[in-house]
Amino acid sequence: MSTIHVIGAAGFAGAQLAALVKDHPYFELGQITSRTEAGKYLVDVTPEYRVGRQLTELDLGAIAKDDFAAVCYPHAEAVAVVAPLIDSGVRVVDVSADHRLRDPAAYVVHYDFEHPRPDLLEIAVYGLPELYRDAIVDAQLVANPGCYPETALLGLLPICRDISHVVVDAKSGVSGAGRTPTSVVHYSHVTDSIWPYKVFAHRHQPEIVQELGQDLIFTPHLLPVDRGLMCSSYARVDREAISDQATLDARYSDFYEDHPFVEPVVSPPTMRAVQHTNFAQVCPMLSPDGEWVAVFSVLDNLMKGAAGQALQNFNLMAGRPETEGLL
Amino acid sequence: MSTIHVIGAAGFAGAQLAALVKDHPYFELGQITSRTEAGKYLVDVTPEYRVGRQLTELDLGAIAKDDFAAVCYPHAEAVAVVAPLIDSGVRVVDVSADHRLRDPAAYVVHYDFEHPRPDLLEIAVYGLPELYRDAIVDAQLVANPGCYPETALLGLLPICRDISHVVVDAKSGVSGAGRTPTSVVHYSHVTDSIWPYKVFAHRHQPEIVQELGQDLIFTPHLLPVDRGLMCSSYARVDREAISDQATLDARYSDFYEDHPFVEPVVSPPTMRAVQHTNFAQVCPMLSPDGEWVAVFSVLDNLMKGAAGQALQNFNLMAGRPETEGLL
Amino acid sequence: MSTIHVIGAAGFAGAQLAALVKDHPYFELGQITSRTEAGKYLVDVTPEYRVGRQLTELDLGAIAKDDFAAVCYPHAEAVAVVAPLIDSGVRVVDVSADHRLRDPAAYVVHYDFEHPRPDLLEIAVYGLPELYRDAIVDAQLVANPGCYPETALLGLLPICRDISHVVVDAKSGVSGAGRTPTSVVHYSHVTDSIWPYKVFAHRHQPEIVQELGQDLIFTPHLLPVDRGLMCSSYARVDREAISDQATLDARYSDFYEDHPFVEPVVSPPTMRAVQHTNFAQVCPMLSPDGEWVAVFSVLDNLMKGAAGQALQNFNLMAGRPETEGLL
Amino acid sequence: MSTIHVIGAAGFAGAQLAALVKDHPYFELGQITSRTEAGKYLVDVTPEYRVGRQLTELDLGAIAKDDFAAVCYPHAEAVAVVAPLIDSGVRVVDVSADHRLRDPAAYVVHYDFEHPRPDLLEIAVYGLPELYRDAIVDAQLVANPGCYPETALLGLLPICRDISHVVVDAKSGVSGAGRTPTSVVHYSHVTDSIWPYKVFAHRHQPEIVQELGQDLIFTPHLLPVDRGLMCSSYARVDREAISDQATLDARYSDFYEDHPFVEPVVSPPTMRAVQHTNFAQVCPMLSPDGEWVAVFSVLDNLMKGAAGQALQNFNLMAGRPETEGLL
Repeated sequence: MSTIHVIGAAGFAGAQLAALVKDHPYFELGQITSRTEAGKYLVDVTPEYRVGRQLTELDLGAIAKDDFAAVCYPHAEAVAVVAPLIDSGVRVVDVSADHRLRDPAAYVVHYDFEHPRPDLLEIAVYGLPELYRDAIVDAQLVANPGCYPETALLGLLPICRDISHVVVDAKSGVSGAGRTPTSVVHYSHVTDSIWPYKVFAHRHQPEIVQELGQDLIFTPHLLPVDRGLMCSSYARVDREAISDQATLDARYSDFYEDHPFVEPVVSPPTMRAVQHTNFAQVCPMLSPDGEWVAVFSVLDNLMKGAAGQALQNFNLMAGRPETEGLL
Repeated sequence: MSTIHVIGAAGFAGAQLAALVKDHPYFELGQITSRTEAGKYLVDVTPEYRVGRQLTELDLGAIAKDDFAAVCYPHAEAVAVVAPLIDSGVRVVDVSADHRLRDPAAYVVHYDFEHPRPDLLEIAVYGLPELYRDAIVDAQLVANPGCYPETALLGLLPICRDISHVVVDAKSGVSGAGRTPTSVVHYSHVTDSIWPYKVFAHRHQPEIVQELGQDLIFTPHLLPVDRGLMCSSYARVDREAISDQATLDARYSDFYEDHPFVEPVVSPPTMRAVQHTNFAQVCPMLSPDGEWVAVFSVLDNLMKGAAGQALQNFNLMAGRPETEGLL
Repeated sequence: MSTIHVIGAAGFAGAQLAALVKDHPYFELGQITSRTEAGKYLVDVTPEYRVGRQLTELDLGAIAKDDFAAVCYPHAEAVAVVAPLIDSGVRVVDVSADHRLRDPAAYVVHYDFEHPRPDLLEIAVYGLPELYRDAIVDAQLVANPGCYPETALLGLLPICRDISHVVVDAKSGVSGAGRTPTSVVHYSHVTDSIWPYKVFAHRHQPEIVQELGQDLIFTPHLLPVDRGLMCSSYARVDREAISDQATLDARYSDFYEDHPFVEPVVSPPTMRAVQHTNFAQVCPMLSPDGEWVAVFSVLDNLMKGAAGQALQNFNLMAGRPETEGLL
Repeated sequence: MSTIHVIGAAGFAGAQLAALVKDHPYFELGQITSRTEAGKYLVDVTPEYRVGRQLTELDLGAIAKDDFAAVCYPHAEAVAVVAPLIDSGVRVVDVSADHRLRDPAAYVVHYDFEHPRPDLLEIAVYGLPELYRDAIVDAQLVANPGCYPETALLGLLPICRDISHVVVDAKSGVSGAGRTPTSVVHYSHVTDSIWPYKVFAHRHQPEIVQELGQDLIFTPHLLPVDRGLMCSSYARVDREAISDQATLDARYSDFYEDHPFVEPVVSPPTMRAVQHTNFAQVCPMLSPDGEWVAVFSVLDNLMKGAAGQALQNFNLMAGRPETEGLL
């Protein structure tokens, strides 16, 4: 039995993670902290998760060296907690964006802050088990992927060396925007509509580029949905490498053969198929003229796109079965 | 031609009213003011209304004696603007709650403030034309009804003297809660749910009681809908007075015969029938044993429940056809 | 290990039940049948449940005497399958309405058919464990409650002898109407609205009356929600029996003390708290004048209101822990 | 005054058109026909439109030579009514797909029927006033555009000669799928999700190609929204022709200068801005590296995408102001 502390447990991702850890057969739920809601019971903040524990102030000193910690703070704030945890030997999954990019300069450009600990960027492993499982097993610091990059990458990685002119049209549920009330997440703004935002300017773009290995067009849209994220990705395809649908399908079935949470499917998926689960579905389709590929990838942004992904990483880090507590 | 100034035009009701006035054949749109958004174009705040005018700071001195003004401020703040307008002879529709209750003491109990101008409560006419049309015509100050009371009263007024044990179960669209982002109107809180709130404690309760002439149980619910308000009202019925469905129907058709915006219907209505219109629909149904009546009343909370109602009142005050600019 | 056959597994309730049984530690999933979709994989019909088994035609002869069976057919059709199963000694949970009412004559009045096996009505136990747990344990035939009655009864049973003038205003998610496409469940009819239907004429009314022991007003509304059912129930209360909120609360905490799936709460609940779970929440509130009680009860209509409830009953019938496979 | 007959008035587009014609200052509403709902009042079929007229069987003989007719039948069925109307001299807007494609062979390939009157394809004018206004004025037969092509074309026409590698990711409200209940439009299928469908196989694809003048990737998605259609279109751009955002913007402002219903905007639009109106909004954005353009175009699929567009065409055909009855 090991302990996982959830730092920032009142947000959507943190609360979901606390609920998953609470029901996990191996892990034990440690501190569940909140800077603004300490004292409240988590179940009163998020009634869908029956975690009848009080949120507390973070007590870094009470985290043991062989515990695990998840940091669910906003970017630029997470590193201030991650750093001392790492320095004291704790193994961490950073759910924030603070350790996803390898280039420290990128934080100035895309996140408007000077990264205080570039050394951590060197040891951080990008927490996508479908790409870096072996490294995650041994990592001290895992950078949990952003929900958009996770979805886009799962859709495109199996063919990333044979495509060009990539366009990712992404549609996200509102929970991806977090629990803070703003005019953007006001019900009357979201319902009955779809809204493209941060066009050519979303911070998840460089993260996708880093892992996909090529530039692309990425456009997020806000969807009148609570949980769920779909990427409709389009690209020109190298016809020599991928000459027909069967070849394309084989790429995906091979790539995900040993990855239990990614399901290649032959019909375009719906969010229904993955909501409240840690599964992703990917559906690659070759255009009739063979010039283009369209890939539809979908997951639950709070599960495979955040908290479920974090727990999957903790499972790997602790030498547990990858799917434990996630089926 | 007369001018209507919309004071507080950046909120949901004020913006809708500005759009209605802009397209009105007789009225001209005067000042459209906002304390927080002055300088912005209204169309940029509420893109669904093509009002290409800038919001401004309120300039009370520029409102002429024979102009009309609508005050769309929150309660307790409206009276500070209504009072000088009335004192200078301007005719006002107060869209806030500040002049709906006749008893000054009620403001302390239900709205937590001492009403600074109880004299205005004496001259204010409750702005429900289906009840007080003649008085509205001559009023200097009209208190526009709350959206819940408007809906409940239209459903129950035709039989209010022959019922008892009244229960009003009300379901409101989110726009009724206003434009300010809070955790309550966060999309993720509203969608896929229905939520009873302020049970036995909503400020619209005493307003319904005042106009209905009897006590009742009133419970508001927040609905995953943007615009629309339905009251499902239940009451024991005086069987001597209302002995069958035909008698019940006649009550409604008689009561609303000269009221163009209230449509008695024989099947339970949907919100679809009234959204984006100034119509209300009411459907009274006698229980098989003749002991109970159920009445379903429905309207668009921003139209007949707020801005449309205000314009209907302005039409009456200005001697215009009641439906002008509202069909 | 015992086998549960799900007869009619392609509908919303049947599919959910098949998914629950598949993951149950004790029960094994037997036949999953469909009259119209036999041959399809269940996961292709309902992708949210990963049941990779083919739907088949019903093979009554292959159901062993010590198996269990759930019948998820429409009313008037279920009895034709329930009867031979019962006659051959199989223990059955009938998810349909065919064995909920004790009075055979009621089927003619409310369901338009002459019940062919009134003897089964005599042995059927109403499958609400919070009321009949002991009888369910030994029953051969359990009549799973309707989703509306289940929700209303859980809200009112603890005080049913001390209330009168009962009004139940019910709001149901669309999945309660079943998988068959009709104009009523067309997205464009449901969204942005709420719709009262079958007023004074819904078949669940006599079922509530039977179990509550008194007449009442019951009005169902269709909600723009997929899963979830809320009853807002109102009644005059015997002030001698229930004199204050503490007494009221005690009634509920006492009544549900040994019932793990019903959670008395002090604030009005949301559907979020129970969706995708077998929990119900109930919130009783005494009016300030002490004359009325309002009770808000909420559950997931496919879980505690149908499939979860069925599995809870199977657990009891098989001598398993009541919550097994349901937490 | 002229008469417009609406043939097929019980569907979503036909009913909306009947409502628009009824309120039009110049046109008079003639026959409103339905093959399945004749005898019903239109307001009972679509309560949001207060058209208190009965639907009738079509009486072709009662349509005068100088009347106008809109045919709102499904494809392959419309031509059978359009043909005799045209032959007798009536001027027609065909809201179906039966006269949109110029190549008769395309109907076999894409619509599975041999077009019985290829001569009509030669005289039909594609009913997009932003492209063919002059020809519409004089046309006897106008082929109203499909809702997807209309939206995509308005987004791309101003730059169609300077782009390549075009990808149109389209998101449609459910009303675009029509009033017939199917499993696809079941509320429980649509809500909380987004669903790509008919990928590489949608019938609107050849229509876009025909008018845009180049091949493209087109993917429709079903959105949990009633009314509204957005195309997010992406293309490589000729940097010589369009070197910066100002040049791009000028293309759109010039192209739409004389077209009152298309609004170029500088921020990505929402559906809210166009719902229940005949306006479209288009927002072109050049990527930071200048290689790509993203264009977001949005309209109400029942208004500018169907009925409003039809009325706009009738206005032109009758020599009326283009915006009459549509503001």
